[in-house]
Amino acid sequence: MPEQPELTIQGWGDPTRPRDATVAGGDDGADGSLQLAPFPDLAEVLPKVARKHLSRELGWTPRPTPPVAVADIRLAPSRLSEECRLRLALLLGEEHVRTDRAARLRHAGGKSYLDLLRRREGDASDAPDAVVTPGSTEETAELLALCSEMGVVVVPFGGGTSVVGGLAGIDADDRPSISVDMGRMARVRALDVPSSLVTVGPGMRGPALEAHLERHDLTLGHLPQSWEFATLGGYAATRSAGQASTGVGRFDDLVAGVTMATPSGVLELGHPPASAAGPDLLGLALGSEGALGIITELRLRVRPKPRALEYEGWSFRSWAAGLAGLQRLARHDLLPDVVRLSDPDETRANLLMASGPGARALRASLRGRRHGQGCLLVVGWEGLPTLVRARMRAAASVLRDGGAIRVGRRVGESWRKHRFAAPYTRDSLLDAGLLVETLETAATWTALPAVYDAVRKALRESLGRGGRTPLVMSHVSHGYATGASLYVTVLADRDDALPIQQWLSAKRAATDALVAAGGTLTHHHAVGADHRPWLEREIGPLGVEVLRAVKERLDPRGICNPGVLLPD
Amino acid sequence: MPEQPELTIQGWGDPTRPRDATVAGGDDGADGSLQLAPFPDLAEVLPKVARKHLSRELGWTPRPTPPVAVADIRLAPSRLSEECRLRLALLLGEEHVRTDRAARLRHAGGKSYLDLLRRREGDASDAPDAVVTPGSTEETAELLALCSEMGVVVVPFGGGTSVVGGLAGIDADDRPSISVDMGRMARVRALDVPSSLVTVGPGMRGPALEAHLERHDLTLGHLPQSWEFATLGGYAATRSAGQASTGVGRFDDLVAGVTMATPSGVLELGHPPASAAGPDLLGLALGSEGALGIITELRLRVRPKPRALEYEGWSFRSWAAGLAGLQRLARHDLLPDVVRLSDPDETRANLLMASGPGARALRASLRGRRHGQGCLLVVGWEGLPTLVRARMRAAASVLRDGGAIRVGRRVGESWRKHRFAAPYTRDSLLDAGLLVETLETAATWTALPAVYDAVRKALRESLGRGGRTPLVMSHVSHGYATGASLYVTVLADRDDALPIQQWLSAKRAATDALVAAGGTLTHHHAVGADHRPWLEREIGPLGVEVLRAVKERLDPRGICNPGVLLPD
Repeated sequence: MPEQPELTIQGWGDPTRPRDATVAGGDDGADGSLQLAPFPDLAEVLPKVARKHLSRELGWTPRPTPPVAVADIRLAPSRLSEECRLRLALLLGEEHVRTDRAARLRHAGGKSYLDLLRRREGDASDAPDAVVTPGSTEETAELLALCSEMGVVVVPFGGGTSVVGGLAGIDADDRPSISVDMGRMARVRALDVPSSLVTVGPGMRGPALEAHLERHDLTLGHLPQSWEFATLGGYAATRSAGQASTGVGRFDDLVAGVTMATPSGVLELGHPPASAAGPDLLGLALGSEGALGIITELRLRVRPKPRALEYEGWSFRSWAAGLAGLQRLARHDLLPDVVRLSDPDETRANLLMASGPGARALRASLRGRRHGQGCLLVVGWEGLPTLVRARMRAAASVLRDGGAIRVGRRVGESWRKHRFAAPYTRDSLLDAGLLVETLETAATWTALPAVYDAVRKALRESLGRGGRTPLVMSHVSHGYATGASLYVTVLADRDDALPIQQWLSAKRAATDALVAAGGTLTHHHAVGADHRPWLEREIGPLGVEVLRAVKERLDPRGICNPGVLLPD
Repeated sequence: MPEQPELTIQGWGDPTRPRDATVAGGDDGADGSLQLAPFPDLAEVLPKVARKHLSRELGWTPRPTPPVAVADIRLAPSRLSEECRLRLALLLGEEHVRTDRAARLRHAGGKSYLDLLRRREGDASDAPDAVVTPGSTEETAELLALCSEMGVVVVPFGGGTSVVGGLAGIDADDRPSISVDMGRMARVRALDVPSSLVTVGPGMRGPALEAHLERHDLTLGHLPQSWEFATLGGYAATRSAGQASTGVGRFDDLVAGVTMATPSGVLELGHPPASAAGPDLLGLALGSEGALGIITELRLRVRPKPRALEYEGWSFRSWAAGLAGLQRLARHDLLPDVVRLSDPDETRANLLMASGPGARALRASLRGRRHGQGCLLVVGWEGLPTLVRARMRAAASVLRDGGAIRVGRRVGESWRKHRFAAPYTRDSLLDAGLLVETLETAATWTALPAVYDAVRKALRESLGRGGRTPLVMSHVSHGYATGASLYVTVLADRDDALPIQQWLSAKRAATDALVAAGGTLTHHHAVGADHRPWLEREIGPLGVEVLRAVKERLDPRGICNPGVLLPD
């Protein structure tokens, strides 16, 4: 079934490859890089000085906290009746309906901190009762109609990388559930170069698509941190944003059309290049998270591979100055394609993690210029060389006016090299008894400072109990004319007695705080199961009712991923 | 009630101003301009040579075809019961509920060729039974709840400029109808400069908003041909596109949020800058055409006023070469902010309409360079001077590689000067016995040539009966990476016996043809009443059912503009 590598069950990465070989950059400690390097052992993930510093700052004692053996993960027997299994096999073929332990385990849940905690502790109670793999839109539509008739819950599965419980499979009626893996629908189906459109199956992943497009000197350019494993259908279903989305646009902006199978039939949505023929129904499929149906085909906008790529670092003396600088760039349509402004805590941590003479020299230089408590900004420019140069010059002038100083290309290139490293690093930190999780939001430029303060305060209060002090690191990573996203990484000494409760409390406090301060519930992680309680605050009770009306029309028996998106 | 000028009842323009003073440019014939100039009399609209040419080409004899006097327009008595009127007056105040002839006539229908034909012939059977003007979101919501209870149909009214029957007020149950004029909600409510956001009432028009923004060195930049009279709420309800939308984006792209009152309550939609919290419900309000509720507030993205504006003309030897040139610009993100490529028929007509030595010299020069049967391209660049220069240089190189020659700034400046002139000119042509109408679509770059051929063939066949030969002129005016819009202007000798039937047949043939060839039903005119029969072909029967489900939830008694959008 899978031509593309699968994710390891209890963490991140391809289980068939040694953990330290999965990401480039193992040779970095010595060359002055500034990012966490992905290594299997804590000693290699964190330089000694960083370990000591973290240990002191967090009130944390590094301690072995290994996962249980995969063989010891508890899995309940499949609840799918033999009759249901047979009908599914009759539709899809025996080999495309699996109820074995390996398949069910691999499709259990996603990759949030809570998912990993459960899987590391041996709990797979959220595993599906079976895993099926349809081969076409028609088969998927028939599958949904059949499951609707049989009362079987359907959870679409792309890369399995959800960090918001999108695969939790919760059902108030406790019906049996199947995971619908899109891995057989993972190919390029058509390429229209003059119209910059590629038609793909939903199970395809970024690396495979980029390899295909490269042969035509094209790129999609969507690069979220989950890029190695997430699928194109998943990006659409969750309204993903990529690291270069300030330039190429969010995934929403790259979708010209989708085909979506539902229990009530098939929808063909989107009419490129643009239409005024009524409300945009394509926008209902994007972000539908499997709750309205399953996306079975995507028509995506591609572009020529950029001929110039320029990445560099800048420094601002303060977070406020950094935000003001980005806001001025944004107003004048001068934002780079990649923009990533770290707050003082994240900047300090990144500088501390880096070792070698290059890093020491940079730290000294920043201190000497009174930027020792400052904010690093990574920017990336891509495109036609003449336009990249003109945009860089115009932006540099705005940045300098805002008090920023250029710290060079090394910082930018180091960030590029390690852009997919964080989830690998997380596994090593979990092994040593740390809580590690991220959350994200977005707000207008005017509201952003208050949102930032509110989230930090909430996380520090919640995770600061019992003598602990969490490290809360933030960055802006997607800029818009009207505002920006805020991405927060939290490290804290794990509460070994109640680790799940520890994070649930912190997450609840942080989400209450960011929503109250004017942030959106989620900028690119989606709603999933985890954010459902706040959806009504985001779109209002009538907004929820509108979504319910759409769901009832398309999925009258409520079998489509009932555990996500809509509150109970 | 109206602080902003109203449209004349039987045509275009402010009735309180003399017709030849409404648009700048009356002094143009002599300076070599290339556009139709807006004049009251045919002799001034068309140079003698153009009149003769048109007359011969169309098989048309210019003849006085005046409208009936406004006093002679037939208007049925209001069907609104006194009880209903009293309840409305109780809610809104006596002065905000009008049933007088003047108010009802002014709110009858829109400005399509068929609307004008009916009004010119003295038919106002589509007039509302009353005109009301709510003053706030809350009042609008109460109004809708009251009308839902009373069984009164509600047709929102912005500028009254619909060209697709958006104000037709058709109701299968023949209930009384009221026009809800948003003219009292026409002010700027908030301006957040750092976040580039302005909050406005839906009844505000472009000129008033631009005047307000100019004081802050800002602009919205949305400039459709109806700009002088259309409202911001109308742009949102119909998914408008402006002349500079290739650069600043369609109106959809400028809307960060709306408040929409419905019979079931108020929706607050959109969370700037971006969100992944479920499907985009804002996209349901955009293009809803009053069928789901009434937009009562908009949050719009503004930008700094451009410091550089460069408009110029280019010529391609053929339509195919012109399309290929634009497509290459589009793929490389090099499209200008304004782009307008006329086909050979439109180019020839424009050159013929222009008089004076400048125009003669241009015609001779184009002939001499074997571009005599070519296509004129108007491009406009706006923004920071350094970026405008860099973009122009890069684009010029692509255009030259595609065989285009630069014909100078005069062509570009002339187009800018006359950008709002066409609807004034139309009145003069109607007065002389011509059929004049436009239609539009969009398609991928790959499908566009076939759509162009199909529409032209259908129009020429349908309007070519009885010894007539229509003039079908087309241009591309909104470019995207994936395709472009196609805007078609039709002139034909009017069938004085059955003028409405003449256009209905042609429109039906053209729409069938463009949809079959892969074009969208409408790129920016909306669905209205006129395009309803094709909506199912555009979004499929299940797509229509989804819209119906949303409408039933928000408007259970179907009082919200029942004559538009959804097929019967």
